[in-house]
Amino acid sequence: MIPITITAFDRSPDGGRGLARDTRVRWALEEVGQPYAVRLVDFEALKQAEHLARNPFGQIPTYDDGEVALFESGAIVLRIAERFGTLLPADPAGRSRAVMWMFAALNTIEPPILDLTTAKIFEGDRPWAGQRVPLVIERLRPRLDQLAAHLGDAEWLDGSFSAGDLMMVSVLLRLGSSGLLDDWPSLAAYVARGEARPAYKRAFAAQLAVNTRPQGA
Amino acid sequence: MIPITITAFDRSPDGGRGLARDTRVRWALEEVGQPYAVRLVDFEALKQAEHLARNPFGQIPTYDDGEVALFESGAIVLRIAERFGTLLPADPAGRSRAVMWMFAALNTIEPPILDLTTAKIFEGDRPWAGQRVPLVIERLRPRLDQLAAHLGDAEWLDGSFSAGDLMMVSVLLRLGSSGLLDDWPSLAAYVARGEARPAYKRAFAAQLAVNTRPQGA
Repeated sequence: MIPITITAFDRSPDGGRGLARDTRVRWALEEVGQPYAVRLVDFEALKQAEHLARNPFGQIPTYDDGEVALFESGAIVLRIAERFGTLLPADPAGRSRAVMWMFAALNTIEPPILDLTTAKIFEGDRPWAGQRVPLVIERLRPRLDQLAAHLGDAEWLDGSFSAGDLMMVSVLLRLGSSGLLDDWPSLAAYVARGEARPAYKRAFAAQLAVNTRPQGA
Repeated sequence: MIPITITAFDRSPDGGRGLARDTRVRWALEEVGQPYAVRLVDFEALKQAEHLARNPFGQIPTYDDGEVALFESGAIVLRIAERFGTLLPADPAGRSRAVMWMFAALNTIEPPILDLTTAKIFEGDRPWAGQRVPLVIERLRPRLDQLAAHLGDAEWLDGSFSAGDLMMVSVLLRLGSSGLLDDWPSLAAYVARGEARPAYKRAFAAQLAVNTRPQGA
């Protein structure tokens, strides 16, 4: 019996480039070596009562390990890290700092990155898109400057690879197609170190397989 | 000796309306009954090396309890909740769900609320402001619909008041001046229940006192 079940898109809007938020949860599960089952949902299912009971905001991923059912990728990754070890330092101070980097990824870095997606994609056909995209990029740049300044030439944000790095790399990956990370080679290298981890590769392959399987399979 | 020190704005941009992120940390400390000292910083100090060593993103609040130094209000509130009890349920499942609501507040609800602040304030003088504000509100509405549907007629999000409610109320308070919460009376009442807590009142009064003291005091 596989004890952990997550939900993921039947067909992700990104076509399997790993940007949907189930990839971070798959990555965490691969890092701690826990098998898991996946319940695939399409956009119609997200609005149905069965899914809204799992996540009232109608999003993926959700998670159920038999003891607790959760939504929010941050909460799920933290649960996995706390329950199965290896993604959080053993000492309380280091543990709190790893959690801090998870929050920094989700509340300080991801919002301005998603603003860029909004400006380019969701509002890409609006008359203000041409003027607004540079403005959004100018708000994002200082955050990436500061992150790069903190990272320096270290391998990870605070000692060994942690759930904080897993989340930060996942968030930075959303900049991939913009080419913006080229301006911060140390951040690009940091993201590449994350992508090179065997657990990430397995997680990426798993979500890609779902998104590229034949229709009806 | 007071063991906990936080940083807060010397003069907050909101003039003491409680919207700066130190209020959530003060509130959590008041809920658990821990005294704390405050290091006040102005906008110039945020850019200096001394503050950047505490928070590489140059923001407030920061937190130091002698064992660990942190930034990110989510990480700080979680640390306070874990260290001093009373803001998280004792059972592991309930505890994970309270943490889930913290992430939901910071990663699902706060970003579209801050989008509205961006559209109205930071881009309020741009030619697209008039067209864009309604668009941003239409993206926020479904989130508030979903949150209200989950809350129903319950007092708090999941059983007793928790760190998840503390963070969700703090985030919703940012809608105050927009009048938008009037469309969701149950959410407005939820926020009012948070504001009515003695610990919130003490936290609000403390930050207001800082922001309204005479110049030079």
